[in-house]
Amino acid sequence: MTLAMNADALAAFLDREFPQVRGDFDIREISNDRLCVALNVADRHLRPGGTVSGPSMFALADVAVYLAVLSRIGPKALAVTTNCSIDFMRKPVAGVPLLAEAKLLKLGRSLAVGDVLMASEGHPEPVARATLTYSIPPER
Amino acid sequence: MTLAMNADALAAFLDREFPQVRGDFDIREISNDRLCVALNVADRHLRPGGTVSGPSMFALADVAVYLAVLSRIGPKALAVTTNCSIDFMRKPVAGVPLLAEAKLLKLGRSLAVGDVLMASEGHPEPVARATLTYSIPPER
Amino acid sequence: MTLAMNADALAAFLDREFPQVRGDFDIREISNDRLCVALNVADRHLRPGGTVSGPSMFALADVAVYLAVLSRIGPKALAVTTNCSIDFMRKPVAGVPLLAEAKLLKLGRSLAVGDVLMASEGHPEPVARATLTYSIPPER
Amino acid sequence: MTLAMNADALAAFLDREFPQVRGDFDIREISNDRLCVALNVADRHLRPGGTVSGPSMFALADVAVYLAVLSRIGPKALAVTTNCSIDFMRKPVAGVPLLAEAKLLKLGRSLAVGDVLMASEGHPEPVARATLTYSIPPER
Repeated sequence: MTLAMNADALAAFLDREFPQVRGDFDIREISNDRLCVALNVADRHLRPGGTVSGPSMFALADVAVYLAVLSRIGPKALAVTTNCSIDFMRKPVAGVPLLAEAKLLKLGRSLAVGDVLMASEGHPEPVARATLTYSIPPER
Repeated sequence: MTLAMNADALAAFLDREFPQVRGDFDIREISNDRLCVALNVADRHLRPGGTVSGPSMFALADVAVYLAVLSRIGPKALAVTTNCSIDFMRKPVAGVPLLAEAKLLKLGRSLAVGDVLMASEGHPEPVARATLTYSIPPER
Repeated sequence: MTLAMNADALAAFLDREFPQVRGDFDIREISNDRLCVALNVADRHLRPGGTVSGPSMFALADVAVYLAVLSRIGPKALAVTTNCSIDFMRKPVAGVPLLAEAKLLKLGRSLAVGDVLMASEGHPEPVARATLTYSIPPER
Repeated sequence: MTLAMNADALAAFLDREFPQVRGDFDIREISNDRLCVALNVADRHLRPGGTVSGPSMFALADVAVYLAVLSRIGPKALAVTTNCSIDFMRKPVAGVPLLAEAKLLKLGRSLAVGDVLMASEGHPEPVARATLTYSIPPER
């Protein structure tokens, strides 16, 4: 299977369509059914005590599955998240990027489902996990 | 039942402990098992097209249940979210606050569960719903 | 709004299409956006200690939203559950039916979302809650 | 790490404590953090068209994580499911067992979290996925 967008194309798309999160995310690896993206943890992502906030982890999981879907179907900004379940399991390690490894479990005509496992770089224990469903708009 | 914290006490606590989100949330109403909080939608909460971002809706749901829990058990900053399921159902209406109505379904010794329904102010159709579980640390 | 199927029509449909669960469920009330269905708790639904099993509560939540959807769109056996999040909060009371109150939050062309609150008859505290998404097949 | 219970001990425990599901499940493999269990699909697990019912898939996911937890902490029948999110993605293949591969993501003092991927034997595409949280009762 050929990817519809590679890492550079995805990064350019993200920069153009989602300027609000520019600089937050780095695509690390990409293959047919997996994508690894890093959250560059900055002050605005933190809670007191140095922990990454829940909304920042949600954002990381969301972008990871979104990019995994786009890598397969091409640049459709209109794909929207319809559901997410997320479990927060451990405190992230301070001062290192938080990595998300996304895996597409289903890529149907109208729905895509992906799993995400998040861990602090260099620390294998999972910090959080999430599953997201995306609704893919029909072709015009 | 008497509330452990009223709206003013909760707002002061939020300001002090979570300065990163200062100004984002207004507590509108509070009773024994319900709490209504508004997201003051600003540019940083938006996605292209004027829709409120998923992470911003997650943050609203999270703070709504957190405040509902604190209103009953008092100021324990260490209560942490362990799980969230969230469904995004409609596009929020642009230019108005997004309201979250939280309801506590369980307040046990170690776990609390709350439901949240979100809607744009003045528009009854639900924009999103969420359920969150909080782990409450044992007393020292 | 007129219901596409009333309680009698739904009960007849359930009996015909799902003979495996015949006798398990009683439709108690139905209106435009709410439906109440009871699980007639029998030995096969129990776990040691007399508690209703998790799969039986899942089945109750699933049928409640399914019937709520059918009451609005008519007898489409092919609507399928795509996602469920469920929280188990209290032990059900032994020896009484378990009631599920379902509420439709969204009824779109291709996706429906419903919330369910479950409680033992005569006991207001919620035993469990669930949210289910149904995929509705396109018209032929 | 040594397992607290091996496959034979788990199977004997399940038979003794959960006689209602006797014969439904076969433990196929077990290691430190993974456990594979099969649902022996029988008529009572089916829906019209030969598909495995949602409650049967929920039951399979639930037992898979339960056994994975017990394999590590020993025979504590009182561990209870507090939360499950489950996604149904494809129709199972008729006439073959449904396999669940469970992986423990967290085993804390009071909460355990496990992921489950389900697929029809001999068919790699995932039929469903689930994440479950178990509450572990404190030692007396």
